[in-house]
Amino acid sequence: MMETQAVGTVYLVGAGPGAPDLLTVRAARLLAQADIVFYDALVHPETLALAVRARQIPVGKRCARVSTDQRFINRGLVEAAKKYACVVRLKGGDPLLFGRAEEELSALRAAQIPYQIVPGITAALAASAELGVSLTRRGQARQVTFATARVGEGELASQWAAALAQSDTAVLYMGVKQAAAISATLLAQGKAPDTPVMVVANASLPDCQRWATTLAALPHLSAIQQLEVPAILLLGEVYRASTLETLAQAA
Amino acid sequence: MMETQAVGTVYLVGAGPGAPDLLTVRAARLLAQADIVFYDALVHPETLALAVRARQIPVGKRCARVSTDQRFINRGLVEAAKKYACVVRLKGGDPLLFGRAEEELSALRAAQIPYQIVPGITAALAASAELGVSLTRRGQARQVTFATARVGEGELASQWAAALAQSDTAVLYMGVKQAAAISATLLAQGKAPDTPVMVVANASLPDCQRWATTLAALPHLSAIQQLEVPAILLLGEVYRASTLETLAQAA
Repeated sequence: MMETQAVGTVYLVGAGPGAPDLLTVRAARLLAQADIVFYDALVHPETLALAVRARQIPVGKRCARVSTDQRFINRGLVEAAKKYACVVRLKGGDPLLFGRAEEELSALRAAQIPYQIVPGITAALAASAELGVSLTRRGQARQVTFATARVGEGELASQWAAALAQSDTAVLYMGVKQAAAISATLLAQGKAPDTPVMVVANASLPDCQRWATTLAALPHLSAIQQLEVPAILLLGEVYRASTLETLAQAA
Repeated sequence: MMETQAVGTVYLVGAGPGAPDLLTVRAARLLAQADIVFYDALVHPETLALAVRARQIPVGKRCARVSTDQRFINRGLVEAAKKYACVVRLKGGDPLLFGRAEEELSALRAAQIPYQIVPGITAALAASAELGVSLTRRGQARQVTFATARVGEGELASQWAAALAQSDTAVLYMGVKQAAAISATLLAQGKAPDTPVMVVANASLPDCQRWATTLAALPHLSAIQQLEVPAILLLGEVYRASTLETLAQAA
């Protein structure tokens, strides 16, 4: 008995930060061609609407909380590639930056399913565009570090924080709920208490919000503690003018 | 006598990594509307061709070498906004990650010209898509640091390298010519000599090339020393399988 051969290709596609027109032209074209789309919960309805002829399968990842069993997604992609020519796995932001793509890629490789990856605009760049601040402003920031901050099981250990503390600019994805732990850990690593911090929620969307604080005062920024939308923290001297301006507007 | 008021908006637009269809939908629409476009040397001709009704002004930045005087660009943007409704400043990659946008933004702010920033796909994400490797693979990389490596005037000092050496994954933009200095500096910071290194040139384009090595052997990778196209270095354990696979293919 022969194994059913793959007939299609699986495209891991970055949906970008939120705004439907910050999708790439390639991603838009693939969605229009797609026979089936497996999509994360945070993908914008207008983005999904581009997949006019596709079966649309929600797989429910939201802010790094996995609602759908990863094995279900892996199996779904492999089975879909045996039936359909164009299978799209649509992920928020970029698939390869905190996108947890590796399990899906491993499953596709193991099943010898052809795949391609289509990069997307990541939240840090969308938030920077909102702020109008270069992550690597000359004379102030020679490097930028992106990290997640999932506390628990010692993940907020010193090694996690060392690169962040040493980096002129630091961006934390999915870190809002861990704001107090992030502040304490980076201060313990010697980061200056008055390091400017910007928090940006819903970057690129009409309801984008921003807050300004310092590393030492971050635990007291009560407005962000109950946020249920995607938000990132940006830290570093490049944000000093942004924090002053944001605080002046709020006053 | 009244100062001439701005009539237009300046859009700082990321052209993405190279492939014309890795432009965002928003960028494509703005190019089609543009009255005038100031563009970097590395922008793809097909991308520029989207600006069907625009005056097209080359401003010649190529691989971080500034060919056109920055003050000429600044003045050009301000003057253009007094004459045209839609002024596009088209920059390779993303405008706010090693894009040297701050001087242009400062000039626009000083002249009270309205501006907007449209993010673009940065080279690190395009190179990762080529390699099929997550920059932040779970269990291997909790953070990724992006930096440039311009040697000279003590820029490759220990503070520059500390965040890179501490980071699980590191990406160096425009670092190919400084490969020997990068290797020596990161080794001196305690980075393991056998740290896998991938070099990716022309990511996202048909003539994309890749090379594999280790941090210790990087100075001896002669193929990259005369590269005249944009290339980035990616370092870290997440690239171990890629380096083995690339070396096996080359053998």
